[in-house]
Amino acid sequence: MNVTRTVNVIRGNEDTFYQMSDKVIKEFPLNIAINGQELITLVCSPMHLDELVAGYLSSEGLIKDKNDIHSIKFSGKSVSLTLDQSTTPISNNSPKIVTSSSGKVSGNIDIKSIHFDENTKVAYSSIYEIADVLSRSSELFKDTGGVHSALLSNFSMDFTLFREDIGRHNAVDKIVGFMVLNSISPEHKILVTSGRVSSEILLKTARCGIPILVSRSAPTDLSINLANRLGITLIGFVRGRRMNIYTHERRIDITN
Amino acid sequence: MNVTRTVNVIRGNEDTFYQMSDKVIKEFPLNIAINGQELITLVCSPMHLDELVAGYLSSEGLIKDKNDIHSIKFSGKSVSLTLDQSTTPISNNSPKIVTSSSGKVSGNIDIKSIHFDENTKVAYSSIYEIADVLSRSSELFKDTGGVHSALLSNFSMDFTLFREDIGRHNAVDKIVGFMVLNSISPEHKILVTSGRVSSEILLKTARCGIPILVSRSAPTDLSINLANRLGITLIGFVRGRRMNIYTHERRIDITN
Repeated sequence: MNVTRTVNVIRGNEDTFYQMSDKVIKEFPLNIAINGQELITLVCSPMHLDELVAGYLSSEGLIKDKNDIHSIKFSGKSVSLTLDQSTTPISNNSPKIVTSSSGKVSGNIDIKSIHFDENTKVAYSSIYEIADVLSRSSELFKDTGGVHSALLSNFSMDFTLFREDIGRHNAVDKIVGFMVLNSISPEHKILVTSGRVSSEILLKTARCGIPILVSRSAPTDLSINLANRLGITLIGFVRGRRMNIYTHERRIDITN
Repeated sequence: MNVTRTVNVIRGNEDTFYQMSDKVIKEFPLNIAINGQELITLVCSPMHLDELVAGYLSSEGLIKDKNDIHSIKFSGKSVSLTLDQSTTPISNNSPKIVTSSSGKVSGNIDIKSIHFDENTKVAYSSIYEIADVLSRSSELFKDTGGVHSALLSNFSMDFTLFREDIGRHNAVDKIVGFMVLNSISPEHKILVTSGRVSSEILLKTARCGIPILVSRSAPTDLSINLANRLGITLIGFVRGRRMNIYTHERRIDITN
């Protein structure tokens, strides 16, 4: 499925104007129904939609692992899932629409149950490198300027997974979904996001158990508070060979 | 109310690490109740909250002008409003949480009722200038890197209004709210946003009647479609002395 569209545009450059064509990113509305009931519409980029759905459901606490998904069927702009009824606290409210830039603070994340005992260290130079990989990976951003990206890596960087989406929450949820669908352990993993770190992004990271969250951009005060409480190493403003470590620096080896 | 907080951070610069303090942006949850019923929680920056509330309600089609607000009372992180019952199509669903990056596609915007007959031209050089004003205005962004901004200007730029918020939709809603509360006409106005233009931002602009929408960033295909249909001039990627005019270029005077 195409994720971009080519449009005509009048390009102004200094005092000269001329017609040209340019790629823009599409908004794709994906309607999610669970056990026959409409749950939500996610506005997204139509790539890796199975991961997006699995990641969203996991981030919202509606599934624990892939075995909770009994069936999944895509049809056009809709996806229908059958989940174990006992694991789906779905209300009778009308479906929600979550647009490309949206996220919801999940009310059902039991943050007390999240523990991060992992204390293995990663070299600070790997953090610089991994953020650099993220920014070099997005062809779609180079084409359209309209997407966010996320990258999952292990400490030694011999495993990396890159995902992008019009929504910064969706990009992270695609990573989470890949982990859920492929039973990837969060141990010794680093999640990098192109976007700012709000409490929602921090909670998505916490819920799936990733110990280190890295952003090329700014964190909010609440995300720092939560990272502090939950034991997550939060690093922001990684640009070139600079970074800010906000919390739990014990996992970063600053000697190499 | 403070919109930032100072935190301790370990700053890495090349191979050197040192402790310093740095400002980060706060997430402020504002609970909105209408006629005694909880409507929504907006995660925002606590500045110009009256405008944010008025703008949000206007963008959602819950009020038409300031006379629809009978009373408004702030208390801590809550605001209670009394609106004319006949103008408030509030459902019985439980309250929604809209986080700092969120927006909702309004189902109740009657886009057929929006007409843009205005054909007055604005000099292209003013578009360059106005985007430049936006990027120079945000002290908070310089401090924290964590906010979006929006600017309303008339064509001659002797009226400008700057607002910022942790959420890009909120920054635009604060502009809309100022217009609602002060009965500012949208005629001959330009709205500039620091963020990407999704369909939601385009619809906010359309609903309040502003004929020209300018972004320093990318538009989506759907926002371009809507701008085309609704008669809005949509300009993106205004950086330095470059821009892309996507729709209705008739309002831009490319001769000066």
